[in-house]
Amino acid sequence: MHPEMYEIMNDIKRGIQYIFQTENNMTIAMSGSGHAAMECAVFNTVEPGESVLVGVNGIWGERVAEIAERMGANVHRMVKAPGGYFSNKEIEQAVEKHKPVLFFLTHGESSAGLCHPVDGIGDICRKHNCLFLVDTVASLGAAPIFMDKQNIDILYTGSQKALNAPPGTAPISFNDRACHKMFNRKTKPVSYLFDMTYLSNYWGCDGQPARLYHHTGPVSGFFALRESLAIVAEKGLEESWKKHKEVAAYLYRGLEDLGLKLFIPDRDLRLPSVTTIAIPEGYNWRELLAYIMKHHQMEMTGGLGPSMGMVMRIGLMGYNCEKTNADMALRALADALKNCKKSKA
Amino acid sequence: MHPEMYEIMNDIKRGIQYIFQTENNMTIAMSGSGHAAMECAVFNTVEPGESVLVGVNGIWGERVAEIAERMGANVHRMVKAPGGYFSNKEIEQAVEKHKPVLFFLTHGESSAGLCHPVDGIGDICRKHNCLFLVDTVASLGAAPIFMDKQNIDILYTGSQKALNAPPGTAPISFNDRACHKMFNRKTKPVSYLFDMTYLSNYWGCDGQPARLYHHTGPVSGFFALRESLAIVAEKGLEESWKKHKEVAAYLYRGLEDLGLKLFIPDRDLRLPSVTTIAIPEGYNWRELLAYIMKHHQMEMTGGLGPSMGMVMRIGLMGYNCEKTNADMALRALADALKNCKKSKA
Repeated sequence: MHPEMYEIMNDIKRGIQYIFQTENNMTIAMSGSGHAAMECAVFNTVEPGESVLVGVNGIWGERVAEIAERMGANVHRMVKAPGGYFSNKEIEQAVEKHKPVLFFLTHGESSAGLCHPVDGIGDICRKHNCLFLVDTVASLGAAPIFMDKQNIDILYTGSQKALNAPPGTAPISFNDRACHKMFNRKTKPVSYLFDMTYLSNYWGCDGQPARLYHHTGPVSGFFALRESLAIVAEKGLEESWKKHKEVAAYLYRGLEDLGLKLFIPDRDLRLPSVTTIAIPEGYNWRELLAYIMKHHQMEMTGGLGPSMGMVMRIGLMGYNCEKTNADMALRALADALKNCKKSKA
Repeated sequence: MHPEMYEIMNDIKRGIQYIFQTENNMTIAMSGSGHAAMECAVFNTVEPGESVLVGVNGIWGERVAEIAERMGANVHRMVKAPGGYFSNKEIEQAVEKHKPVLFFLTHGESSAGLCHPVDGIGDICRKHNCLFLVDTVASLGAAPIFMDKQNIDILYTGSQKALNAPPGTAPISFNDRACHKMFNRKTKPVSYLFDMTYLSNYWGCDGQPARLYHHTGPVSGFFALRESLAIVAEKGLEESWKKHKEVAAYLYRGLEDLGLKLFIPDRDLRLPSVTTIAIPEGYNWRELLAYIMKHHQMEMTGGLGPSMGMVMRIGLMGYNCEKTNADMALRALADALKNCKKSKA
């Protein structure tokens, strides 16, 4: 609660505005990981009994649906198998049918390796008086997103993916439409800690002359987030997007050379930061991953939630996004494929 | 989600068991500050419509009351002016009257500088089938507390007070009575992020063989918390309590020598980590504090919430708790008293 800290926080706010490509005044960092931003977005913009529409094509949509259900929203799920995506027509039909106050979509579906298109969806939501909430935890900095241009009403990400900061803070931004909804509620949000009335004051976004004590922020996390934002701003977002795309393409080629099949067939829909590989026929994926961890001290993971047993995942993001790391991953995979026994099935 | 990290988390668990003086298996660190622990405790042990009794004698009780109200509890406040405390008789009468499922009390009321006695209250709560929840954010490590011996059902603290770790993690522990209540609910807690069903699995407290992904914990914060717990364990809790008491007593003498009046008259009820001074007659407290910040680069604060305008506060806790720091504070105060004009009123 010192002016010096407020300057740090103001820098963070400006950095988030840049990475989100937004001029929204209501732009802050949550004191928590991506899930804190997820709950903050839903808790503040939805009141009990209101309709919420959630695109579920992996783990993150299901989480938001559960969060909204717990606080008493009337939740409607649009469900696709992991790797599936929603056409704008499907979305508009569902919005017309369920008349939600909020529509949720994951931009970077890390459990499936999908980068969901968002163009045009913000306009559909505006037309139907619905807020458009987008999760970019796994994609921000790795794939282009333009909050203002794409008419996204609420956007959040995490600190520990392509931004390279330690986990524990989560950038989030609300535009005027979202602010209008959340600051004209009949009921108080279920969480005091995540109440944007207080958080907006803590971050100096509410136009009040004084900031009052609300909670103790993770100050070391804020310092780290500020620096990570400064690094992205220095190098430029375009450069970051380009780098992720190039390294991902390099990895795709290497995987295909190993005879592996990418889980997302359409290259334009692949999430550059997290590449998903269809589990090669005859192999036990747990065995492959354990071999790679043991013999190459390298973590690749299996699926997450609904994609469990369907994919193996390689994360190359932020600082870690280099061709030399892709090469290491490819060498480890080649070795594992050679040395892990194929099952007889 | 690596075995190496689980070992770090197990060390943290053992460290918290030591500082809380408990053998509770259900002992974890929240991914958030004290407020996260506060919401976690209330969200998990109370269901909508249930009665909650809150001791309000400063800012923290009021916060818990508001948190419980937001999630739909039927909240009853026992209110005292800042610095006041509740006798066991008063508590028992209120418990009999309101039949709460949870009674909240702040052990270290930092806004008033009060250390509330807790002996016997756990027994009253047991007798009336009520859980006893205690906030020790400002007191843990500075004043004795014995979770098991004092029959406290739920206890939490913060990382950034006497424990010296950065803010962003918060130790919390539930005994079997609390676990029985929170794991036999009819409704789900309003927060997915703070749901102890998932958090207990993340911390390996639920007896399940595998830990599933729930949220991303602040790993750097966990490393720091582990080290801070190790330091307390190495020096010993008794040593820490003794040090805080001695330095506080030294500060009291110095303040009295300056002609200042301590806000809590009864020395045994003073919180050793945060000393509250009654605002000296004729002075403007904001002016005194601003003078000290400007000329001595030292932060003392005013009141917080209901104690605003009633006290000036000096924090000497953890690493910072040294007689040399008390001397610096006393010199700064003496200088401010000499150089800040008394108002004519």
